[in-house]
Amino acid sequence: MIFMKAHVLFSGGKDSSLSAIILHNLGYEIQLITVNFGVMDSYLHARETANVIGFPHEVELLDMELIEKSVDMILKDGYPGNGIQFLHKSVLDILSEKYCVIADGTRRDDRVPKLTHSEIQSLEMRKNIEYVTPLMGFGHKTIRSLVNNYFVISELESEDLLKSDYETEIREIIRNRGENPLSYFPKHIQSRVTGLKRYL
Amino acid sequence: MIFMKAHVLFSGGKDSSLSAIILHNLGYEIQLITVNFGVMDSYLHARETANVIGFPHEVELLDMELIEKSVDMILKDGYPGNGIQFLHKSVLDILSEKYCVIADGTRRDDRVPKLTHSEIQSLEMRKNIEYVTPLMGFGHKTIRSLVNNYFVISELESEDLLKSDYETEIREIIRNRGENPLSYFPKHIQSRVTGLKRYL
Repeated sequence: MIFMKAHVLFSGGKDSSLSAIILHNLGYEIQLITVNFGVMDSYLHARETANVIGFPHEVELLDMELIEKSVDMILKDGYPGNGIQFLHKSVLDILSEKYCVIADGTRRDDRVPKLTHSEIQSLEMRKNIEYVTPLMGFGHKTIRSLVNNYFVISELESEDLLKSDYETEIREIIRNRGENPLSYFPKHIQSRVTGLKRYL
Repeated sequence: MIFMKAHVLFSGGKDSSLSAIILHNLGYEIQLITVNFGVMDSYLHARETANVIGFPHEVELLDMELIEKSVDMILKDGYPGNGIQFLHKSVLDILSEKYCVIADGTRRDDRVPKLTHSEIQSLEMRKNIEYVTPLMGFGHKTIRSLVNNYFVISELESEDLLKSDYETEIREIIRNRGENPLSYFPKHIQSRVTGLKRYL
């Protein structure tokens, strides 16, 4: 067995949790990574979930300028897609300087953030890394079954749920700039893993 | 734990073997399925591999007309892409009448056979099934590491390797029609799982 370590981008949500578990089952040593831009300490929610699912957790503090630039794009566009895509690609580029195997919870039916096949190949070749998205072959119905089998989740409106994804800090910056985040992020149900039903 | 059974299309190769293992680890009961069109008993090679990796195995005998039609397309085109894509989509359509969760070994970097995102969504909605491709988020470098960790594989030129994929029967039909399969399938290295190094 060759030693393999995977750094999994981790928001505390069900998708990144499930991705970590799939890679753990395949024999990877898991290191969860929550990216934070110093806007607020939202990474604490991911840390709680990391304790629940039992993998080591680190916070990667990145330059606030990056997320400010993402917010600039979102305010200019009037919708979050391009800004979040830019932020995720930038994060992957930065982490690729440090880590060899980087994973995230991107799912087959996700739209944003999601790298195209050629963006993935470019990232892997430019940085000589492996980028892994364990849920890319799973549709939402399959993921719902898996999540129901493994996790206790807390589901709330996105404004009310304490989570550690990009959106949480982006909304805070938008608020700080005197605008209403709801004008850019329509209400949607988000979820966070709060317990394990069964270990694998 | 809700009972979930996954039918995994199985050629005896490393990709379908690895897909079965990922789903098994996620709690699915695995049923390997090798499709055969009655051209030759190539399914026997998949059966051997199924015994090696320890999952139950069934042969699904489908109408020879289907593969003959695929060969018609290949001979007309002069290359195998469209014919194999047609065959795989037809097989998924047929199996979707019987099974609820159908998986195969399609990888991120594969070209053919590979369903587009809208073809996948159409299949799942028309047939009310789940189509799962556990390797879709893994690149060839990552898959090579995983395969090296788990399997003993036998690698040979495609013409010499005894395998149970579509290509084996297609080549036989082309030979029976008096043509040389090498004119349509350039030589490539294929692999078959012949042993387990480590179970998961």
